[in-house]
Amino acid sequence: MIRNTKSQVVIQNCRGGVGSIEIHNKITKEDLVDGLSLFAKVVIHPHSTIGYHLHTDDAEAYYLLEGEGVFLNHDKERIEVKAGDLCLIKKGQSHGFENHSDSEVQIIAIVY
Amino acid sequence: MIRNTKSQVVIQNCRGGVGSIEIHNKITKEDLVDGLSLFAKVVIHPHSTIGYHLHTDDAEAYYLLEGEGVFLNHDKERIEVKAGDLCLIKKGQSHGFENHSDSEVQIIAIVY
Repeated sequence: MIRNTKSQVVIQNCRGGVGSIEIHNKITKEDLVDGLSLFAKVVIHPHSTIGYHLHTDDAEAYYLLEGEGVFLNHDKERIEVKAGDLCLIKKGQSHGFENHSDSEVQIIAIVY
Repeated sequence: MIRNTKSQVVIQNCRGGVGSIEIHNKITKEDLVDGLSLFAKVVIHPHSTIGYHLHTDDAEAYYLLEGEGVFLNHDKERIEVKAGDLCLIKKGQSHGFENHSDSEVQIIAIVY
């Protein structure tokens, strides 16, 4: 199965964060991909963030394709990350992401 | 948890294919990431392929970051794909990938 939904959604103040992000979903809930509920390219605009939020029933990974940012882990530690880094949380943990730079940050986000 | 193992393995004739590929694993089995057994950037060199092979116990997704190639699906149909496309197989299905071009193809491969 090949998917590329061309869906593009701009979200302001994602999860209580600041600024805006773009979500390009590659699969939809209707695709019913067992074991994978989200596969998306996400663009975090300059000086924008994804607020710290909880994953009750699933795990998530952010893989940085481009740019540099700050990963906020479950313990609310702020960790500097760059292209090539994979940021993981387990089911039941929380996380967030901050782009304090003048350039956009591109990531792949998967929820599984 | 942040992972970027810097691991780089070159494999010749992957899964019975031709030429060579590079696998940059971001997680290892020791990381014990529940629900995700592989997250890797894979480079398929020019005129190289990943041979058609079966996934008995897990599903896999290939996401094309760069380049153009041919996805060989479970039914052995050859489908042209390009950067931005997501190629999915379910548990119990088979797949392969062919790069017939003069440029490398970069993908993210996840097994879940």
